[in-house]
Amino acid sequence: MLKFDEQLYLKDGKTTYETRGKIEQIADEISKEGYKNIFFISVGGSIAIMLPVVEMLKQLTDVPIYAEQAAEVVLTGHRQLTKDSIVIMSSKSGDTKETVRAAEWCKENGYRVVSLVGTPDAPLEKLSRWVIPNRAKDGVEFEYMELFMLVFRLLANRNEFPKYNQFADQLEKLPENLVKAKQKFEPIADEIAKNYYNEPYNIWVGDGEMWGEVYLFSMCVVEEMQWIRTKAVSSSEFFHGTLELVSDNVPVFLVKGEGKRRVLDERVEKFCKQYTKKLVVIDTKDYELEGIDDDFRWILAPTISTTLLVDRLAFHYEKYTGHDLDIRRYYRQFDY
Amino acid sequence: MLKFDEQLYLKDGKTTYETRGKIEQIADEISKEGYKNIFFISVGGSIAIMLPVVEMLKQLTDVPIYAEQAAEVVLTGHRQLTKDSIVIMSSKSGDTKETVRAAEWCKENGYRVVSLVGTPDAPLEKLSRWVIPNRAKDGVEFEYMELFMLVFRLLANRNEFPKYNQFADQLEKLPENLVKAKQKFEPIADEIAKNYYNEPYNIWVGDGEMWGEVYLFSMCVVEEMQWIRTKAVSSSEFFHGTLELVSDNVPVFLVKGEGKRRVLDERVEKFCKQYTKKLVVIDTKDYELEGIDDDFRWILAPTISTTLLVDRLAFHYEKYTGHDLDIRRYYRQFDY
Repeated sequence: MLKFDEQLYLKDGKTTYETRGKIEQIADEISKEGYKNIFFISVGGSIAIMLPVVEMLKQLTDVPIYAEQAAEVVLTGHRQLTKDSIVIMSSKSGDTKETVRAAEWCKENGYRVVSLVGTPDAPLEKLSRWVIPNRAKDGVEFEYMELFMLVFRLLANRNEFPKYNQFADQLEKLPENLVKAKQKFEPIADEIAKNYYNEPYNIWVGDGEMWGEVYLFSMCVVEEMQWIRTKAVSSSEFFHGTLELVSDNVPVFLVKGEGKRRVLDERVEKFCKQYTKKLVVIDTKDYELEGIDDDFRWILAPTISTTLLVDRLAFHYEKYTGHDLDIRRYYRQFDY
Repeated sequence: MLKFDEQLYLKDGKTTYETRGKIEQIADEISKEGYKNIFFISVGGSIAIMLPVVEMLKQLTDVPIYAEQAAEVVLTGHRQLTKDSIVIMSSKSGDTKETVRAAEWCKENGYRVVSLVGTPDAPLEKLSRWVIPNRAKDGVEFEYMELFMLVFRLLANRNEFPKYNQFADQLEKLPENLVKAKQKFEPIADEIAKNYYNEPYNIWVGDGEMWGEVYLFSMCVVEEMQWIRTKAVSSSEFFHGTLELVSDNVPVFLVKGEGKRRVLDERVEKFCKQYTKKLVVIDTKDYELEGIDDDFRWILAPTISTTLLVDRLAFHYEKYTGHDLDIRRYYRQFDY
């Protein structure tokens, strides 16, 4: 596979899975201390991958859940955010300006922060009450794994996720399954990139627990790393404006999930099959998760799409566009 | 002014304001019955204008507030949505498929619905426990006025909006102020439309209580009614991907609000001034609200932007593109 080191990837999976003990210990401490609600606070790609978790929690827990953009919440506050809240933050670099500022603000206000931090001794680490090291070199799926262990252990402690142990045991098998998914997708990724790398504009659609994925890939990869124009819209909202832009030659990328909102994705698919010749469907259902219960698939679907898109499709785009994924003209290049 | 009937508009303003008594009576009944949280449930443009209200309420009330897309919530439910919730819905036609289905679902589950309905005897009216007639012919600002009276009266009843009476009294002066805002904006709208009607792609940016406005205008007007490609992004998230698409010839439309997040808009403005020659700033601060306290301006800012954009800029686009705002190729043209 293009730019893929299987041994390193599986080692990263193992490193991630090894944080299970620590994560469960943190979750148990939080449960023991008690909390009234949970806030996810981050920016960009980091908040994007929290959105699927928020969508899942709506269906699973009686605890009120909120997601806030770091730069906004420090300006406005939020009346539900108090010392009784738990704040979950994440930053791969550990020094994302807005997130670090929000963590400082939380500390000043006495809000308890638990963070996923990708870099040892980063500023975010020092500002957090609890730290979950997110030491995998790459792979958004590994951040999902840690978030899942954290939130579902919290739910298990409230009897809202009774199959937690089974779920967490089976998570160990996720990385090897994702390698197989990547392998299966590799020629498809090549084909998609070859066909569409030169398209000046793409519509990206997905819903619910897949919306964060669509938001992340379209904005933080296609736009940020390839400078290609996108429009991202949820499958439900697609029919209230963006559908009018669909025509034979407009590419629509649909990311289908496996949860209760899948019928909304299917409605988009049915519509687009008729009105564009350039429909690309990424369906997580096409990828096996051996040794993992079907019950957990809707939760793990974003780990599949992220491994296919962020780790595979992005590199194939890079190959055809010749546009290095690491080049930025503005982002983090200077102060603004 | 282009396609504008001032007398009709002021009459619509009056009709809207006359619902104050009924709205306050409904709010008082709801307050008396009690409620644990408030859900805004709708689709497309109707949910878009609820998003600013959600952003305001985060800062003003201890009541948990949620916004859900109608087609999604009926599939997944939401653990916080119970018989103790109040559901606020809105539909101009009163027959929007997803919203009507969600209202039926609420009724089946015993959730109390209060609706803003634009058409007498529409299906949504029959499914709602309380109905606020929204009889103005056009004008998103009139829907805002009704929503504001409803939610801020609810807050007043909890001592969370002590200046309610002053606010509601002054609302009567909003329509005439908006006429003046339109007049001032008319030549600017013409200039913007003339300069940009032919641009194949626009970035629309705004934040917080203005985000719903940016979402609405870009998707439900520019995309749906003019078939022009857009990307909408919040001022805070702009810096995490979309900024890389900015270059000299890419139009960026920034809608500045007057709340606590205005500094985020200013950051976008400062950045874009340097990196595109096509920055258009819509700043509600440029428009007077005579007879209305400055304290209320951040709340009323979305009514100003909507009157400028949806009511004025849209018609000037239509004039230059020659693309009738009422033409749809798909939306409501057949079943899909």
